[in-house]
Amino acid sequence: MRALIRDDLRHLHPYGAPQLDVPVQLNTNENPYAPSEALRQAIADAVAGVAGTLNRYPDRDAVDLRKDLADYLGHGLTARQVWAANGSNEIIQQLLQAFGGPGRIALGFEPSYSMHPLIAQVTATGWIAGSRDADYGMSTAAGQVRQHKPAVTFITSPNNPTGTSVPLALVEEVYDAAPGLVVVDEAYAEFVRAGTPSALTLLPGRPRLVVSRTMSKAFAAAGTRLGYLAADPAVIDALLTVRLPYHLSTVTQAVARAAIAHRAEPLATVAALRRDRDDLVAWLRGRGLTAADSDANFILFGVFDDRDAVWQGVLDRGVLIRNTGPEGWLRVSVGTPAENDAFKQALTEVCTL
Amino acid sequence: MRALIRDDLRHLHPYGAPQLDVPVQLNTNENPYAPSEALRQAIADAVAGVAGTLNRYPDRDAVDLRKDLADYLGHGLTARQVWAANGSNEIIQQLLQAFGGPGRIALGFEPSYSMHPLIAQVTATGWIAGSRDADYGMSTAAGQVRQHKPAVTFITSPNNPTGTSVPLALVEEVYDAAPGLVVVDEAYAEFVRAGTPSALTLLPGRPRLVVSRTMSKAFAAAGTRLGYLAADPAVIDALLTVRLPYHLSTVTQAVARAAIAHRAEPLATVAALRRDRDDLVAWLRGRGLTAADSDANFILFGVFDDRDAVWQGVLDRGVLIRNTGPEGWLRVSVGTPAENDAFKQALTEVCTL
Repeated sequence: MRALIRDDLRHLHPYGAPQLDVPVQLNTNENPYAPSEALRQAIADAVAGVAGTLNRYPDRDAVDLRKDLADYLGHGLTARQVWAANGSNEIIQQLLQAFGGPGRIALGFEPSYSMHPLIAQVTATGWIAGSRDADYGMSTAAGQVRQHKPAVTFITSPNNPTGTSVPLALVEEVYDAAPGLVVVDEAYAEFVRAGTPSALTLLPGRPRLVVSRTMSKAFAAAGTRLGYLAADPAVIDALLTVRLPYHLSTVTQAVARAAIAHRAEPLATVAALRRDRDDLVAWLRGRGLTAADSDANFILFGVFDDRDAVWQGVLDRGVLIRNTGPEGWLRVSVGTPAENDAFKQALTEVCTL
Repeated sequence: MRALIRDDLRHLHPYGAPQLDVPVQLNTNENPYAPSEALRQAIADAVAGVAGTLNRYPDRDAVDLRKDLADYLGHGLTARQVWAANGSNEIIQQLLQAFGGPGRIALGFEPSYSMHPLIAQVTATGWIAGSRDADYGMSTAAGQVRQHKPAVTFITSPNNPTGTSVPLALVEEVYDAAPGLVVVDEAYAEFVRAGTPSALTLLPGRPRLVVSRTMSKAFAAAGTRLGYLAADPAVIDALLTVRLPYHLSTVTQAVARAAIAHRAEPLATVAALRRDRDDLVAWLRGRGLTAADSDANFILFGVFDDRDAVWQGVLDRGVLIRNTGPEGWLRVSVGTPAENDAFKQALTEVCTL
């Protein structure tokens, strides 16, 4: 059977953060705050409201949902400038299917979101692993784009796993250097530190700019699988030729709309998570560790001679974090105060901080 | 912007049966029977049961759902032999991503399901439009497979839009001739006439055989978007390298499981639809028209000098059917008795049968 698999995929192993059953899960940057009873009821009511239509196909273009998302994003955006899919992974896949593909290349600045190169590979798009400065900045980004002329350039901001936002001036510089699409992956945008603007502000007059978002993090809806983007309507017209018809189920559309309607609840958790993140960064630095500035709901910290041993030691104490990113670093998602305390306790024991 | 789109996709227009707001919709082979109040409640309850976990990612491998689907399919299948995705379109896409791709070809026997070649194109898989006999039979199928050596061969059974099942002996012949995967697309399997076996019976000992199914039709769940397949576990291992992580939402998994648990209700509609289909075939033939033998919930009928005029005339009378398939033919989905009567009335007026 392996001989039948596409040659360039045969060596791949399935993606995946381990899904381990441990008490404290701080490894996939989920929002730790479960929906309240009221929100759960609103979601169930929304599904009850559409369940009688499930024998019919969904609205293929998800017009009402896109309108709600546009309203949420603001910046004068309309449904025509917003597109939605099953998680931002499917958004990325559709972008690479339409604008990448055989004979074309995509470029990202590593380390960054590991799905960008993986989805490039699956869509048969060449991948250029762009580099970063020693401190993970992107001062050479525009030059790399000029050199490689990618059809699609990814900028993750705030970056994953480093956690820091990219200055908009740099996004503009990359856009001006790029011959093709520039995708700013803002999965963690709602968690930025005060005064950090979104690339949404750059959309007017930039038809090749795409800003992607997700409801997985700030909306506490990782299980709902709803990613979306804002871009020129012509970009969305192109995606219509590659999207699978009826890709977004009636139920997904209804649940996402209910979550948007009740967004005050999850967005309130964002404020708490930002405060707790800043406290956790300060705590790590206070213990003599290095922690990257974070605009996200996670923190990259280190540097360890044997990060795998630290990761395992923390796991042995019931706390699952992620051994990802540059050698020697570890990533921890910001949890509830109790979860953060458990992490601090475990790390203290492992490292005798 | 068009200049940035992949060269081979630039001419494409978005797929789509028109989504028109007319009283009688018989154009996309939906099950006309909406979920009952009891089933709607069961679906809402299932979602309420998981809504409290939506801040967490779903089970990436949908193990419980795959077990339920395996139990439903029978034939001794287990979860390891079953895979699920957002509609059978995503199943087809994953198969072509893993086993097709650049430099490889897929082959189908046209006319057939129009998404097979479209998804091949999006996944950069070459497409061979295999031919059929004058009566749309497939007597030359194995020879064509021997000639073209496709990495993936599609057999749609019952075929869409012709409606007729493919004899299993022919599937075996194609399998023996094929160097790669043979995908039997059984989207309409539950609607076959009595005594028509499924290709599921051929799976033992045939590791390159895949049988795909959907909950859109017999399960009256087009809005739920749940396609699945049965195959050797090694096929599923290959799909794990191309599937988008967490592709199936927690809500989709829960709704699909609720529908399977309450399948007695939708499957009872299948029996009614089969009877009404046979009656409608007989009625069409009694009016002097040609109607293909149907094992599905739709009927291909004709032959018209100007099928577009007939399609429009029927639409003007509030009944939406599909002008698809070979020149001169039209396709009608089997509806409720009232919908079928409306169709018969409209067609009679248009054609003065």
